Amino acid sequence: MIDDEPKLPVIHRREERPEKSLFRVEALDLEFSNGERRTYERLMSRGVGAVIIVAMPDADTVLLVREYACGVHRYEVGLPKGRLEPGESHVEGANRELQEEVGYASRDLEVLGQLTLAPGYMTHATQVVLARDLYPSRLPGDEPEELEVIPWPIANLAELIQREDCTEGRSIAALYMARDLKDKT
Amino acid sequence: MIDDEPKLPVIHRREERPEKSLFRVEALDLEFSNGERRTYERLMSRGVGAVIIVAMPDADTVLLVREYACGVHRYEVGLPKGRLEPGESHVEGANRELQEEVGYASRDLEVLGQLTLAPGYMTHATQVVLARDLYPSRLPGDEPEELEVIPWPIANLAELIQREDCTEGRSIAALYMARDLKDKT
Repeated sequence: MIDDEPKLPVIHRREERPEKSLFRVEALDLEFSNGERRTYERLMSRGVGAVIIVAMPDADTVLLVREYACGVHRYEVGLPKGRLEPGESHVEGANRELQEEVGYASRDLEVLGQLTLAPGYMTHATQVVLARDLYPSRLPGDEPEELEVIPWPIANLAELIQREDCTEGRSIAALYMARDLKDKT
Repeated sequence: MIDDEPKLPVIHRREERPEKSLFRVEALDLEFSNGERRTYERLMSRGVGAVIIVAMPDADTVLLVREYACGVHRYEVGLPKGRLEPGESHVEGANRELQEEVGYASRDLEVLGQLTLAPGYMTHATQVVLARDLYPSRLPGDEPEELEVIPWPIANLAELIQREDCTEGRSIAALYMARDLKDKT
């Protein structure tokens, strides 16, 4: 159901970047209610928010994308997602990302809840948006290559998460949230 | 089933830390198979690996912990987890963390799979370890305060993820992975 892995990008150079980075670190000097003192570091999220989208062309199918993931240097299968632009609501951002990454727009968008990445040391939060009533619509994105779109039966998440290229906690959690909702209705 | 939120730690001071941080950033100069060039940044994981533990005292119950989460400055409910120490296997690390954070050890530990945080820009990966056949055993940890342990019925994940203090994608994904496994057997 999913083709062989696409050809990986070539890494021409790698270097450490202590400054001018996408990432900003803050240290907090904390005192717990029992009087214990600790200094914890946390990674500050840039931007105004993020969304991850469970797009369903019909009641049984979800649209996955396969995208090069620089952190693990492999192509990963997961849900489309992205950062909000200033002034966008979560459903507006989700509908834009859906058109950029998947080639569909939605007439029925609903926020299912919020997911954090690693709340112990990251401020980052992502809203999970369920998108139904889809129709073809494409917006140009900033991706270096077009993403492969993979329709997947939402009843079959067990097989999906056994794949070694479907590992993102957020994607897996959002898929189960949507499936739970479907089972209830 | 879960008490009111504990008293938050006081933040005495916060400062930016461009250097000497827990976090290290690497820039990759990439060429995609279509010839497109991009420079991507990624956050390099420190240490030798990490585990997240689904500890089940019986076939229907999972043990959650409530811990202060500095990234979001609130107490979060989720699964116990931690970094491996040098030389530890995943199941050894899981059994140590379980004794430090929850006060139980396990005679039956099994790796269910791997979860990444944000594979697009983080190298971090966590092994999901299912722990059964538990018995009381406590090891001293480095936590500033004892963690509250919360038994939760694994059949009732829908109610859990509706809570505003249970948001970590990894914890939610690992809980569903364990529940799927249980439903199959």
